[in-house]
Amino acid sequence: MKFKATATAEDITGKVKNADHFCYGEETKLAWEAGKLTADITEEQRKLTEADLVIFQFPMYWFTVPAIMKGWMDRVLTLGFAFTHEKRYSQGIFKDKKAMLSFTTGSQESMFSANGINGDMNVTLWPLQNGIFHYCGFQVLAPQIFWALSHVPSEARGTMLEGWRKRMQGLLGENTLAFTPLDCLNDMMSIKLLL
Amino acid sequence: MKFKATATAEDITGKVKNADHFCYGEETKLAWEAGKLTADITEEQRKLTEADLVIFQFPMYWFTVPAIMKGWMDRVLTLGFAFTHEKRYSQGIFKDKKAMLSFTTGSQESMFSANGINGDMNVTLWPLQNGIFHYCGFQVLAPQIFWALSHVPSEARGTMLEGWRKRMQGLLGENTLAFTPLDCLNDMMSIKLLL
Repeated sequence: MKFKATATAEDITGKVKNADHFCYGEETKLAWEAGKLTADITEEQRKLTEADLVIFQFPMYWFTVPAIMKGWMDRVLTLGFAFTHEKRYSQGIFKDKKAMLSFTTGSQESMFSANGINGDMNVTLWPLQNGIFHYCGFQVLAPQIFWALSHVPSEARGTMLEGWRKRMQGLLGENTLAFTPLDCLNDMMSIKLLL
Repeated sequence: MKFKATATAEDITGKVKNADHFCYGEETKLAWEAGKLTADITEEQRKLTEADLVIFQFPMYWFTVPAIMKGWMDRVLTLGFAFTHEKRYSQGIFKDKKAMLSFTTGSQESMFSANGINGDMNVTLWPLQNGIFHYCGFQVLAPQIFWALSHVPSEARGTMLEGWRKRMQGLLGENTLAFTPLDCLNDMMSIKLLL
């Protein structure tokens, strides 16, 4: 899928409100209301509207999603469609949907443990799981992580895939992550994802 | 600047090692060694090699950089050029350089305070500041943040810019952020950036 990654004025068909001082968020909100977003965005929004569960499958690049998937988030999760200033987090627009990350890493799991050199994976995933999924209201399922895949022999890969296949069968019945943003975030140490 | 955001096999000129099972990280490492990365990547790598300080200026989109800037990171920070398995973090290749984030937000500062609904900004920036900058060895300067810029009247914007201008004059003399990854990361709460 050769999805356009960069958010630009070309994401809007027809005239924009203020071409001299183009503000992507505001302009795409207006375009969404008027049905003037480009077809690639509209098609992704249609799929998202229909979905009960969205799984983001990717190779982890630089501690987050690759640019093409970030572009999907930047372009498809339009103000108005995916969130408003009133509808965010527990009041979010997608609160009846679930979302999850499924990804491969270059690093071993131990490097992403709480005392690993990369820091805890839950902290690494905070901007994605809280800042994007939870922000839009999604209930967030625990991530499916395939650690250091390039070092895994092919038989073991089969076992990993089998595990994922099994997990998928019960995915919609799993408990979702609990975010404890306000009361518990009482200092910069206290980021918490509780299963 | 219409930088290509998506990391693909087209980033390599000429033949790749394994087209059937293309592995971006490994293939671009070989291409970098052989001088076969595309001109847009090579040019950015040249600028990076010459720089003492790199300032990443962007509007925050979805709690991180926009896709086009993530694409710069995905494509320019090539294995071999920007890091190796031996040269990372305090042993990183760019340890004599400094880097920093400078960005505008949509949200007010209070939403990114330690008990704000978005969580602490330092945690939000962890994947960028630790996972990319510190990983490549950069000394990291405290971010320059322009909060909720669209709500700021133009006189106040002038003051903000003046503050930034003043800060820039002393930037290279500032203390850099201290990362305390191993000993102090003794549970998932203890992510710490100390000025």
